[in-house]
Amino acid sequence: MKNDPIYWEGDVTQGKAVIIEQTKLPLVRQLLEIHSAEEMWDAIRKLKIRGAPAIGIAAAYGVVLGIRGEKLTLVADFMARLRQVCDYLASSRPTAVNLFWALRRMQDTAARHAESGVAAIKQILLAEAHEILAEDRRRCAAIGEYGQVLLLDGMRVITHCNAGGLATSGYGTALGVIFSAVSQGKKVHVYADETRPLWQGARLTTWELKEAGIPVTLICDNTAAFVMQQKKVDIAIVGADRIARNGDVANKIGTYSLAVVAKAHGVPFYVAAPLSTFDPSIHSGDAIPIEERGAEEVTAPTGVPIAPPGIQVYAPAFDVTPACYITGIITERGILRPPFQEAIGKLFSA
Amino acid sequence: MKNDPIYWEGDVTQGKAVIIEQTKLPLVRQLLEIHSAEEMWDAIRKLKIRGAPAIGIAAAYGVVLGIRGEKLTLVADFMARLRQVCDYLASSRPTAVNLFWALRRMQDTAARHAESGVAAIKQILLAEAHEILAEDRRRCAAIGEYGQVLLLDGMRVITHCNAGGLATSGYGTALGVIFSAVSQGKKVHVYADETRPLWQGARLTTWELKEAGIPVTLICDNTAAFVMQQKKVDIAIVGADRIARNGDVANKIGTYSLAVVAKAHGVPFYVAAPLSTFDPSIHSGDAIPIEERGAEEVTAPTGVPIAPPGIQVYAPAFDVTPACYITGIITERGILRPPFQEAIGKLFSA
Repeated sequence: MKNDPIYWEGDVTQGKAVIIEQTKLPLVRQLLEIHSAEEMWDAIRKLKIRGAPAIGIAAAYGVVLGIRGEKLTLVADFMARLRQVCDYLASSRPTAVNLFWALRRMQDTAARHAESGVAAIKQILLAEAHEILAEDRRRCAAIGEYGQVLLLDGMRVITHCNAGGLATSGYGTALGVIFSAVSQGKKVHVYADETRPLWQGARLTTWELKEAGIPVTLICDNTAAFVMQQKKVDIAIVGADRIARNGDVANKIGTYSLAVVAKAHGVPFYVAAPLSTFDPSIHSGDAIPIEERGAEEVTAPTGVPIAPPGIQVYAPAFDVTPACYITGIITERGILRPPFQEAIGKLFSA
Repeated sequence: MKNDPIYWEGDVTQGKAVIIEQTKLPLVRQLLEIHSAEEMWDAIRKLKIRGAPAIGIAAAYGVVLGIRGEKLTLVADFMARLRQVCDYLASSRPTAVNLFWALRRMQDTAARHAESGVAAIKQILLAEAHEILAEDRRRCAAIGEYGQVLLLDGMRVITHCNAGGLATSGYGTALGVIFSAVSQGKKVHVYADETRPLWQGARLTTWELKEAGIPVTLICDNTAAFVMQQKKVDIAIVGADRIARNGDVANKIGTYSLAVVAKAHGVPFYVAAPLSTFDPSIHSGDAIPIEERGAEEVTAPTGVPIAPPGIQVYAPAFDVTPACYITGIITERGILRPPFQEAIGKLFSA
């Protein structure tokens, strides 16, 4: 589709990943060709591609780019090299679990086909990356379908950051729910938090919604509570970067603030995410590593300084919203309801 | 003092107001001479001088600049002209009540001296503007003194926008409390909300605190809740632009959001403001007019666009924090406690 954030072009030996360079949006829609694991690491690290599901897809293609040129013929050597490439890509960003999920899946796939020989495994890994992307499409479509029942005609939705097509394979999780409702003929108005420091809401969410012809009002993050006080919002829907076994959700910094003010105003607060965003290995949000970003993203957000030089800055990229603030989690298997510990346990023991 | 935001230089006929051009801070500390009511209107409108108490002082000097050249000799004609100048200055910004309070006071002063003749009234109005400034110094000092008892050694304070020296005659309300505590030898660490869209926290509060040698950490507005979740904040103190008779407080957009998240974390939430910020004529915050600012302050905050062209924006400059979120209001007459309706009633009937 026109605004898919990532796709593969060509075969395993000569091909390349192509991404929309998201830091250039919305002013320029520029495609960027990625030819190596190093370039993919850099693209993830610098948020040229971002959003938990999209990072997972990017990592999978990054693995292909990292191992396709390997001259090693012994499978054991190849597997060791594959692990190195995965460890390297895993170091690009710490919070979104989809990254580690995709890298684990690529290694598991290779291990399952160890008997096939190195050349075949390379082909199989590209096919697996394609499958991760294709699955994400199906998952987002299912999330949209399950979630759209929450949106009644005329509803006003608030969202934070960008959990749209750009953050996934092309359809979105939180925005996918909105796209799905609109495709059913419902009218929906979106309030988009600008999402400091990197303005994913102002830059990406408004752009996607405008392209889709869905009415959107941009607000500063600090205005969400006032908009709710004025009863202009019916429901909040956001994405997620990692969900603990108890339902605690790590997502873009500011999500927790939005959840607290939503609760204070009786606004239902939903999280939309595929199962690849769940991390059943950790018990609660306390164990989720929170990435901190550089001070200059806060103090010189467009290159022009807005604070005195050398001022101390605290710039976490994510925060953790405790499960008690969450009304429901919209997944490709349906909407999970509290107690989440139980609902998530069932999902992963099944 | 070195960083007083406004002072008068010269006599009534040839003198001028001098302000620190606050939109240039923190990168440049530039003084701006103001010679007419029109220039003062523009300075207030464009936030070259801002902060409720400072706007009141600026308006008083604006009146002097607007009438000092009047050739009218009949007092009645002069009074009519004075009213016109006041109405004009009153149209610069709608929310901070100190503006209207100062303009009313200048007119009342003129009326009291109607017998003195036009030339004398002009002199008296300049003296009254000086007195409004001097009173603000005394009031801020008293607010600091009453408020500093709330700050124990080692406390971490969060504040929003700039309620410092730059927002007043030179000492501040919310920051005055901090300055006062520090002058008593207490150690205080400040978290400064950046305060989108115009970054008064990032630009002005950090600058003032740095100049004063007080440790400060800059955060995005959306990070305050997460900082509180991590138990890094002991108390919140903010300024005010208008306080209704029931204790509802209009202040910079984002104040309400901060109050809601403070309450959710058991962080006491204080407002520091002089009596000139109270508007006993209105019953509740619902009646406070909320200024809306231009979309470009959100979409092109440093001149570089960060959102698609033409996107709809909601950009209120202020919000209203209901009295139930406020732990106390620090005034020059002591700290008011709930029920505020009663406490404020006593203050203004006395």
